Amino acid sequence: MGWSVGVVGATGAVGETLLRVLAERGFPLDRLRLLATPHSAGRRVRFRDTDLTVEAIGPGAFAGLDLCFLAVPGAHVSRELAPEAVRAGAVVIDKGSAFRLDPAVPLVVPEVNPEVARTHTGILASPNCTTIPLVMCLAPLALLAGLRRVVVATYQSASGSGGAGMEELRQGAADVLADRAGTAEVFPRRLAFNVIPQCDRFGEGGFTQEEWKLTRESRKILGLPELRLAATAVRVPVFVSHAEAVFIETASPLTVEEARQTLRAAPGVVVEDDPERGIYPTPAAVAGSDRAHVGRLRQEPGDPHTLHFWVVGDNLRKGAATNAVQMAELLVGA
Amino acid sequence: MGWSVGVVGATGAVGETLLRVLAERGFPLDRLRLLATPHSAGRRVRFRDTDLTVEAIGPGAFAGLDLCFLAVPGAHVSRELAPEAVRAGAVVIDKGSAFRLDPAVPLVVPEVNPEVARTHTGILASPNCTTIPLVMCLAPLALLAGLRRVVVATYQSASGSGGAGMEELRQGAADVLADRAGTAEVFPRRLAFNVIPQCDRFGEGGFTQEEWKLTRESRKILGLPELRLAATAVRVPVFVSHAEAVFIETASPLTVEEARQTLRAAPGVVVEDDPERGIYPTPAAVAGSDRAHVGRLRQEPGDPHTLHFWVVGDNLRKGAATNAVQMAELLVGA
Repeated sequence: MGWSVGVVGATGAVGETLLRVLAERGFPLDRLRLLATPHSAGRRVRFRDTDLTVEAIGPGAFAGLDLCFLAVPGAHVSRELAPEAVRAGAVVIDKGSAFRLDPAVPLVVPEVNPEVARTHTGILASPNCTTIPLVMCLAPLALLAGLRRVVVATYQSASGSGGAGMEELRQGAADVLADRAGTAEVFPRRLAFNVIPQCDRFGEGGFTQEEWKLTRESRKILGLPELRLAATAVRVPVFVSHAEAVFIETASPLTVEEARQTLRAAPGVVVEDDPERGIYPTPAAVAGSDRAHVGRLRQEPGDPHTLHFWVVGDNLRKGAATNAVQMAELLVGA
Repeated sequence: MGWSVGVVGATGAVGETLLRVLAERGFPLDRLRLLATPHSAGRRVRFRDTDLTVEAIGPGAFAGLDLCFLAVPGAHVSRELAPEAVRAGAVVIDKGSAFRLDPAVPLVVPEVNPEVARTHTGILASPNCTTIPLVMCLAPLALLAGLRRVVVATYQSASGSGGAGMEELRQGAADVLADRAGTAEVFPRRLAFNVIPQCDRFGEGGFTQEEWKLTRESRKILGLPELRLAATAVRVPVFVSHAEAVFIETASPLTVEEARQTLRAAPGVVVEDDPERGIYPTPAAVAGSDRAHVGRLRQEPGDPHTLHFWVVGDNLRKGAATNAVQMAELLVGA
C-alpha cells in the first residue's frame, strides 16, 4: 500500500539527490513518475533497478498523484505548477522559495517544527539550504537561553547553483591551473580560487535574497518574528556542503558545556567538537551526510551571553532532498 | 644618502614580496643585505637589476645595519634574532607575532597609529595579515560611532601559510580534478575544494591563535583594551588575499551613508560598494593591491546601531610586506 509520487525537476542536482534519498530511505512508493519541461522529456533516469522515462509536463500531468515534489529552479515555475498539482489532488512539497514565507504554507524542518506540517492546505515548503542546518542548532539554543542576536557568515558551495555551478567551478579550476583565462557565467565572478560575497540577487537594504532567506525563514520556523538575525552569504570554491560561522548573543547566560549538551541532544545534529584532537566538521567531510554537523563551540571570555559555533550541512541532502523526503514521511506517517 | 637595510627571510613568500615593495616604492637604500639560515645561504635573489647573494646569519651578521626586517616563520626565531640586531645598532621591524603584544613594542599600521612608531626602543612589530585591513576600517568607524561589539568571520588564503601553502593548494586541486587522493601537510585537512575552520593552533577558550591575534592586536592598535571583538578564522582555497565578513554594533546610531563617507575618507581604504552594478571586492581582484578594499556596507533594517561590511586585503602586501615597508618609511621620514 504505497503512494503515487511525482518528482518535477528530477534531472537537476537536487532532483537526482531526491531520487537517491527516496530509494535509500525506502519511501513507500506505489508509483514514481518523473516530470520535466519538454526539453528534458524522454530522458531515462535510473531509480533502484529500473529506468524511468521523464515525462513532459502538460495537461493532466499531475492526475493520480498523491504527492508531488517540486525541485525546480525559479520560483515562478513553482508558482505555476503547484496550484495545478494541488487541483489534481496531490500534496505538493516545494523545494524552492515561492511559498516559503506565505503564512498559509508550512515551512518545515522535521527535527524542529514537525507539528506545522499537519496544518497544510495542499502546499508545504522546504527551507533554503543554509536555513536548515542553522535552525537545527538555533531552535534548541533558543530554548536553552533565548536569542538576542544572531550573526551568520556563510561558506556556500557551488552546488547551491546546481550541476552547472559545479561544472563551472571544475572548469574554472582547470583553467587557472593551466594558466588559461576562464569565464564566469553561472557565478558573477570566477569562483575557482576565489570567494564571492554574493549569492543570489541583491535586495532590500543591500542584503542579497540569499541573506534575506536566512533571516526571514529562520524567524518563521523558530516562531520568532522579531529575531535579529543577519547574514553575509558568500560563495566558496567547494563542490558540496555549506558551512556557516555563527555568533549568538543570548538572553540568559550559558556555558559552552550546556550548549554542547543541548546540541548533542538535538535531533539530527552531530557535535564534532574536539579541536585539540583536530575534530571539527568541514564541507568535504560532511558531503553525503543527512545531518547538521557542529563544531568550534566557544564563548568570549567574560561574556557568558555569547556563543560562537561552526555548522556544516550537505546542501543537496539535508539542505534540500533529505529534508523534503523527511517532510513526505511526516505526511504519510512513514 | 640612503640606509643600510637587512632582510631576514628574503626567500619566503613575505620576504620576496618585501623586496618587490622596497624596489617599487623607491625606498632610500644605501645597501641591501639578505640574511637567512645556512640552509638558504648562497642562493641568488634578484633585486632591481642586480643579483644579491643570501648570507648566512652568524656572528656579526647584523653589523652596520641601520634597519632590519624580520620576515621569518616562527616567533622563536624573531625572539632570538631581534635583540641581536638591536645590539648591533639596527632598528628591527618584525613581521611575526613575537613582540606584537609586548607593551614596550609599538604595533603599527601607518594609516591608523603612525604616532606610536616614534616610541620604539629598537623593535617595532607589524600586525597580523587579517588585523591590518580590519583596523583600517574599524579605526574611523570607532571615531564615528563607537564600537560596542565586533564579530568577524575570515576567508583566509593559502599564502598565509607561505609558498608551501600555495603549492599544497595547487597540488591538491590538481589531485581532486584528476580523481587522485591527495595529502595534507601544511594544512590540517585537504584545502582544495574545501574550507577549514582552523588557522594556526588552538588556544585559550577554544579560539585559535589566529583568532586571538585578531582580537588582541586590534585592541592594542585601536587603544581599546576592553573591546569585545571575536572571530572565526577560516582557511579557504584561494592563493592570495584574505577577506573578512565584519559585523559591528556601535555605541551611537549611524547610517550606511555616514559609514561609507567615513571609510571613503580613511587613508588606505578603497570603498568598492555598488552591489546593484556588481561592484564589491573579491580576493582574486584585490591580489596585488596595497590597500584595504571594502564593500557590502549595509545595516539591519530598524537597528541603526548595526553595520555589516566585507573587507579584502592582499595578505602578502598590505597584510605584511607593504605595511612593514611603510613602517620603515615612517622611521626614515621618507
